[in-house]
Amino acid sequence: MSILVVGSVALDTIETPFGKKNEILGGSATFFSIAASFFDKVNIIAAVGEDFPKRHLDLLKERNIGTEGIAVKKGKTFRWEGRYEYDMNVAHTLATHLNVFQDFSPKIPQDLRNSRLLFLANIDPDLQDSVLKQMNRPRLIACDSMNHWIASKKKSLEKFLHKVDIFLLNDAEARQFSGEANLLKAAKAIVAKGPKSVIIKKGEHGVIYYSKKEHFIAPAYPLEDVYDPTGAGDTFAGGVVGYIGKSGSINDSVIRKGVVYGSILASFVVQDFSVNKLLSISPVDINKRYSNFKKLTRF
Amino acid sequence: MSILVVGSVALDTIETPFGKKNEILGGSATFFSIAASFFDKVNIIAAVGEDFPKRHLDLLKERNIGTEGIAVKKGKTFRWEGRYEYDMNVAHTLATHLNVFQDFSPKIPQDLRNSRLLFLANIDPDLQDSVLKQMNRPRLIACDSMNHWIASKKKSLEKFLHKVDIFLLNDAEARQFSGEANLLKAAKAIVAKGPKSVIIKKGEHGVIYYSKKEHFIAPAYPLEDVYDPTGAGDTFAGGVVGYIGKSGSINDSVIRKGVVYGSILASFVVQDFSVNKLLSISPVDINKRYSNFKKLTRF
Repeated sequence: MSILVVGSVALDTIETPFGKKNEILGGSATFFSIAASFFDKVNIIAAVGEDFPKRHLDLLKERNIGTEGIAVKKGKTFRWEGRYEYDMNVAHTLATHLNVFQDFSPKIPQDLRNSRLLFLANIDPDLQDSVLKQMNRPRLIACDSMNHWIASKKKSLEKFLHKVDIFLLNDAEARQFSGEANLLKAAKAIVAKGPKSVIIKKGEHGVIYYSKKEHFIAPAYPLEDVYDPTGAGDTFAGGVVGYIGKSGSINDSVIRKGVVYGSILASFVVQDFSVNKLLSISPVDINKRYSNFKKLTRF
Repeated sequence: MSILVVGSVALDTIETPFGKKNEILGGSATFFSIAASFFDKVNIIAAVGEDFPKRHLDLLKERNIGTEGIAVKKGKTFRWEGRYEYDMNVAHTLATHLNVFQDFSPKIPQDLRNSRLLFLANIDPDLQDSVLKQMNRPRLIACDSMNHWIASKKKSLEKFLHKVDIFLLNDAEARQFSGEANLLKAAKAIVAKGPKSVIIKKGEHGVIYYSKKEHFIAPAYPLEDVYDPTGAGDTFAGGVVGYIGKSGSINDSVIRKGVVYGSILASFVVQDFSVNKLLSISPVDINKRYSNFKKLTRF
């Protein structure tokens, strides 16, 4: 099934205990689409500035990712600067320059409106809703959000979530959104507010998938070294939605496997800066780690 | 296979956000033995004071736990006072009165020296070693330790660990003992120092079992409410060793299932103060939660 992702394509300046990288390829739609491209056809809706390096677009095209929906706008590309401490669970935002992303108002080209799977990355919930209204009944609607929208646009977000099949957010956001410190209570409270299901991402502590009927918990794939956690959440989402797309059907068993594939993809992306590690792996590497994860968790 | 546990039988005064309880039954050998008693015959080696309530000993006897090795010494029973904040991962010790436990020097009665499984709860590593020397080649030797011994008796502990099959400790202790922040590196470093395997307990984040050959990771059983985490680690150990005892053989598959049973037992004990919840459940409740855990984690 074809996948459409609406989000950011950006240039990140990242500092971790392992080094500093300037203006490397980033953005939610970038991480998502590369992860999903291992499984299925993906198209991106995003906006970049005139300064966006052509080589990055070429890189996406080479992976058969549809870039026709990436509008090149007058001005500069969205830039994010962040720093991670030794405990990489916490990112410090040093600077956010929205630039052309400030006026991002996604228009979905006619032929992409029939995409069967839709992922709305972390953007204004009103924009997420406006995208959905342009679509022709996708079979699966998944979305992300963040602390900023939970604080400033909670009503819009809650209204929109009634239309969503899978709402992805991290543990801190889940607590913020639900007002519950306990994540099981948080998951239950979130699903009671509208979305068919929620996936709470706990970083190195794994993931909770929660719907009214089904609950799934998985540890993270254990790693000895994490170099840069940027994009892990969107890469995870790309793995989940990509796997669902590849499998061709949407049911509990497929979603569970998708969550594990998402975790596997995320475990790769954090092993290098930007999307470098994703570019260096093959489906064989992914399946090897998937089998290893099965061995690690079976009892 | 018969199990011997050497550790403390104590009176705890506990404060959590859900209430305060004075002088309730506690101690590592208590939690361990009640958990293990669901699976196999257990005998306790411990020391209590003359003030130790007879009803607690009766409670253990009623569960067919061997209490002949609990010496009643002149003086008072070991008392611990602790307080947990809203985030119950951290215990604040308010007071420790070792009392008769101060001079605890376990002598193993002749008939218990043939116990096939030995659990040495958190006591001085020199005492752990002296117990082991009295034993007649147990088939499995498991032990716990704590920050205090890692800091003050590291050499004794390291020497002793060469004789140990399963070394159990929590995540903070694993980091302290190994000098590695990453738990996978910590597990590897610990096993390189002597024990055949290590189990790192991460509380609500689950558990890592690591030996040179086998690695197993499991999330914790998800709970909406935790009332009192005291004894969770020893209850976990009781589940692991108890299940191994019941199964009658020691191999990777048995240890993995044992780790899950340990997690299940621990998930019960934290749902009430002291051992109250353990006393109110049946093997049916345990197996129900075990099946549910299987459903929660399968993919």
